[in-house]
Amino acid sequence: MKTNYADLSAMMHPKSVAIIGASEKSGKVGAVIMQNYLDSGFQGEIYPVNISSSGKILGKTAYKSILEVRRSIDLAVISIPAEFVPQALDECGKAKVKGVVIVSSGFSEVGRSDLQEKLIAIARKYKLPVIGPNCLGIMDPRSRSDTLFLPTFKIDRPKIGSISFVSQSGSVGSSTLDLISGEGLGLARFISYGNAAVVDEVDILEFLGRDSDTKVIAFYLEGVKRGKEFIEVASRVTKKKPIVILKGGTTESGAAAAHSHTASLAGSNEAYKAVFTQYGFVQANNLEELLYFAKVFDTQPLMKGNRVAVITNGGGHGVLATDALYQNGLVFPELTKQTRDSLRKVMPSIVNIRLPMDIGGDADDKRYSDALELLSADPNVDALMVITLFQTPGADEKVASMVAKYAAIKAKPLVAVSTGGAYTRSHISVMEEMGVPVYESPDSAASALSALYRYSKYRMAKK
Amino acid sequence: MKTNYADLSAMMHPKSVAIIGASEKSGKVGAVIMQNYLDSGFQGEIYPVNISSSGKILGKTAYKSILEVRRSIDLAVISIPAEFVPQALDECGKAKVKGVVIVSSGFSEVGRSDLQEKLIAIARKYKLPVIGPNCLGIMDPRSRSDTLFLPTFKIDRPKIGSISFVSQSGSVGSSTLDLISGEGLGLARFISYGNAAVVDEVDILEFLGRDSDTKVIAFYLEGVKRGKEFIEVASRVTKKKPIVILKGGTTESGAAAAHSHTASLAGSNEAYKAVFTQYGFVQANNLEELLYFAKVFDTQPLMKGNRVAVITNGGGHGVLATDALYQNGLVFPELTKQTRDSLRKVMPSIVNIRLPMDIGGDADDKRYSDALELLSADPNVDALMVITLFQTPGADEKVASMVAKYAAIKAKPLVAVSTGGAYTRSHISVMEEMGVPVYESPDSAASALSALYRYSKYRMAKK
Repeated sequence: MKTNYADLSAMMHPKSVAIIGASEKSGKVGAVIMQNYLDSGFQGEIYPVNISSSGKILGKTAYKSILEVRRSIDLAVISIPAEFVPQALDECGKAKVKGVVIVSSGFSEVGRSDLQEKLIAIARKYKLPVIGPNCLGIMDPRSRSDTLFLPTFKIDRPKIGSISFVSQSGSVGSSTLDLISGEGLGLARFISYGNAAVVDEVDILEFLGRDSDTKVIAFYLEGVKRGKEFIEVASRVTKKKPIVILKGGTTESGAAAAHSHTASLAGSNEAYKAVFTQYGFVQANNLEELLYFAKVFDTQPLMKGNRVAVITNGGGHGVLATDALYQNGLVFPELTKQTRDSLRKVMPSIVNIRLPMDIGGDADDKRYSDALELLSADPNVDALMVITLFQTPGADEKVASMVAKYAAIKAKPLVAVSTGGAYTRSHISVMEEMGVPVYESPDSAASALSALYRYSKYRMAKK
Repeated sequence: MKTNYADLSAMMHPKSVAIIGASEKSGKVGAVIMQNYLDSGFQGEIYPVNISSSGKILGKTAYKSILEVRRSIDLAVISIPAEFVPQALDECGKAKVKGVVIVSSGFSEVGRSDLQEKLIAIARKYKLPVIGPNCLGIMDPRSRSDTLFLPTFKIDRPKIGSISFVSQSGSVGSSTLDLISGEGLGLARFISYGNAAVVDEVDILEFLGRDSDTKVIAFYLEGVKRGKEFIEVASRVTKKKPIVILKGGTTESGAAAAHSHTASLAGSNEAYKAVFTQYGFVQANNLEELLYFAKVFDTQPLMKGNRVAVITNGGGHGVLATDALYQNGLVFPELTKQTRDSLRKVMPSIVNIRLPMDIGGDADDKRYSDALELLSADPNVDALMVITLFQTPGADEKVASMVAKYAAIKAKPLVAVSTGGAYTRSHISVMEEMGVPVYESPDSAASALSALYRYSKYRMAKK
């Protein structure tokens, strides 16, 4: 049967939202969601729905049922006790709502599969895309549509960007969303889909694959129900954009924990790994890598080969970068004679013309510019790792701007490394604001470049 | 010949410092060092020495030679052109200085081994501990003795603590020192020893092994000259305190870079790894791990077994923690019947009494306290991983304090995990201030616990 479960556009950019279970009682989930829509800058209509309410809720006219609204509704958010959800959902269907998020819990995750089956039947009847139940729902920084029932002071909302983050788990979802904000990364869509009764991994991938605002998909996944369809959709998506995936339940004990958590049948880890590799997924081993990788894909072009030139203003970091690159399957390029001769002319005599290129603790923006100019022009260089240690006398905001300038050209991938405290972190923020992916150590930068290279190779082979 | 190269106490807590090459010229290394001693709160005497100066330098009486000072001098810092260093060092010997730091460069690292040989001969003649040349020298937050010639606004100085950080490389040294400050960790000693002409890795390990202020030694190392002595000293030290070691030059290309950087003969990586394992070193794979591991050793007791109980207020993090523990050679304990029964009594019915123990998104300080109390008392539990996601409604500063309270008991190792942005990071700072090692992901927390366990096992086997 043809559904439109993968059409989540109206939910993401709704012109109107009905909040079923809206309330004025502080602390109530329906109150938090309603208040967030009021405070967030959301431009659409807001219709509070509460069976026991009349008059107004938080200043807006309240309705006893969504059927009473009698206007076009793009998104309904349901936050009422589980037993009343099926009827509310049926009314959403009748009201021709375009999409529903059910944040209520109390379904299959607590053994009430009967209730969940009812939701599935209703969604099917109306061909209605339903996210949840037992989820945080969605967040879209462009439209400010935001069903997260977490107080805004506890969790920052990321700025507008191109990374879409999807999580079966609400807690990994919300904490990682918060981390994404903390790291200054930009978000396209956030989807926490919980029990996946109706809209599941496959539908979400299908949607994000077609979504022009989404450049990178970051995915926390515990298990997949429709394996064959998942592979089919993913293999199409990875030909267009990267899917960075963190799989929970990769060990036997972890899989048992995942089963207890989201009733996921984790399946064999080896099978997942093989599928991920075969279909061009980018596998992250932990939350840090999920963000490290998303960041490089978000900002950098594809990488045509595995040859990386390293520029550094600290010798030890050059050594660590060399180890990290070679451990990650990357290598130094053989520089052309022309590059070497030109570098020799512009660099002070103390600088060795070899990789890693240690341009000295006194290197300033001019010296960085010379090295970046010549190395990025070398046909044998596929990517650049630029280490800027801001503790040194020569490194300052001009060096940060210079690195950002070359990163903006985007002819070849560029990653930066800066290790340090407050002064360094202020420069890191500036560079990241200008689109440079900055890492705290050569090791994390190399692992990000390696992920970029592996995906680029997959893409080039599929051309 | 018996030297006292390993006696660095007087240098670390000098009652008096002579700065040879002190200057008023802004930007000059001798000026930066002099100014830092004046500004840092250092309580001892400061004697500027400059051959071409008379009168005062930065308000202090200046001397043309250290021999003119005619008072007891604990530490001399030499920052003059390389060719003049041997004579200055000889005068330090004659003046019965207790220790010397030579920050000047221009010795074997640029092919002037002849000049470096002269330094070695002079040091031997006077049995004088000399750190350097071509180094940043030392930093001691207790005495405020600080030879780093880097502007204080560019690099934060850490608070007083028990971690000593040693680095052959000045750039890894200064940037990691800055990172240590940024992470809020406490420092005992910082030593950047450069060319290691006189005082080398072996002497420094010997000194820090005996140093009662040092609880954990963190070491960035590119190569060892006196391999046999290094092993002999290290094997004694690791029986008393952990040495966390990050080795640069572990790949063939990295070793070549290290040779070019500090003329280190890196030796076979396999040989190093075998020695490190045999003698109880804790090996870090990157800068992040160096800090993650130092942090857990700094704050936590030894770990008697590999059984870790996980408490979480987010299911997905519980899954990730399970994977991470089992991948790191750690396991869940079999809880006693008594623990299970007691937990069943105090926990809400929705909480499953199994590990990872998901105490719910609404868990507050009371529920954390109950879980911590009962799980830490279980004889089958060797350590605790406590996940506190502050995005949830129940988690607040009381939860942070409760975790810190149990961590302070120190009966069993405890690590915490919190993922998030600004609100979360403010709680992380509070917990770390109270001595809880907090990690951003279950993965980094598990790798730290695993390092603690491996070292604990080594220590117990050596008893």
